[in-house]
Amino acid sequence: MAESPVIQRLIEALRVLPGVGPKSARRMSYYLLERNRDGAREIAAALIQAADTIGHCSRCNNLSESELCDICSSSRRDASLLCVVETPTDLQSLEQAGVYSGMYFVLMGHLSPLDGIGPDELGMDRLETLLNSGDVKEVILATNLTVEGEATAHFISEMVQARGIKASRIAYGVPVGGELEYIDRNTLSRAFSGRLDL
Amino acid sequence: MAESPVIQRLIEALRVLPGVGPKSARRMSYYLLERNRDGAREIAAALIQAADTIGHCSRCNNLSESELCDICSSSRRDASLLCVVETPTDLQSLEQAGVYSGMYFVLMGHLSPLDGIGPDELGMDRLETLLNSGDVKEVILATNLTVEGEATAHFISEMVQARGIKASRIAYGVPVGGELEYIDRNTLSRAFSGRLDL
Repeated sequence: MAESPVIQRLIEALRVLPGVGPKSARRMSYYLLERNRDGAREIAAALIQAADTIGHCSRCNNLSESELCDICSSSRRDASLLCVVETPTDLQSLEQAGVYSGMYFVLMGHLSPLDGIGPDELGMDRLETLLNSGDVKEVILATNLTVEGEATAHFISEMVQARGIKASRIAYGVPVGGELEYIDRNTLSRAFSGRLDL
Repeated sequence: MAESPVIQRLIEALRVLPGVGPKSARRMSYYLLERNRDGAREIAAALIQAADTIGHCSRCNNLSESELCDICSSSRRDASLLCVVETPTDLQSLEQAGVYSGMYFVLMGHLSPLDGIGPDELGMDRLETLLNSGDVKEVILATNLTVEGEATAHFISEMVQARGIKASRIAYGVPVGGELEYIDRNTLSRAFSGRLDL
């Protein structure tokens, strides 16, 4: 005997979450219905509020509930540095590490011509506007180390340098605490090609 | 710079889900906001519908959107067999295995005097009504093999036998395909004490 259609709908809906398969979705559904209906209603309310109010910052393109995000409207950030990342999650990781105090630009993806994602889809016109403002002295490219991320970084670096602005790429190599024995070939290759003079 | 309060609320809300810690909750939140707002709205709608419409079957106590659940209202189930389980998830596991065609009674928990859960909280009065109806010839106890589950099974078996009805407990032992080498001590002990004559 199958589950009620209402429970089936809930299981199906929860399966869109990353890392949630049919078993976890069923477990979550029953947990919420058996033991935490208040939790279920709170998730629903939080989802609706977020989907309704979270848009994009008009300057850096990060997720934001206001026209200008907290970072762009802060006077304590260094406006001469602009770090370009692929996603809001990447930005959040950098913020949590607390190692950077400049501004950001969030591409919301990377160049991927086969998927129809070109410069226009990534808001490069808005990035150009930022570069033309004259505030930015250095653009730090922190796109991922994938074929697409590298191509995107290359594209942007040319755009940046054409305006006489410095472009840099964050360093990729052996992570701190990593043991050479366990590091993959590509990372080691990158660690050698990116070696610094002492 | 912290996340927007709206995103923080969503992350907090998702953390009540079983198996979801702060990192997964953040990943889910950003995934929904960056890439799947329709999915977010569908989860919210499914949660609200389920929380509003799913109640308990008046006969077996299983989660149900109607007064009588599909199993209790089916004419194809064997009403002389009654299987007692702790939760709707347990019932669903048995149904998916397709090994049982009788009726159920869902306790929604187990006896736990220290937590204030006695016979009344588990709906034992409704179980008594079922037993007194005269339909039931055998009660199969499928509560968990924990101290509380065993105590609950013992309590119910006395209630059942006092009415001259047969009580049985599902078998616990080495799982099919299990190798003795990897089976824990308690399971092995149970496998020996529950051995069957050949």
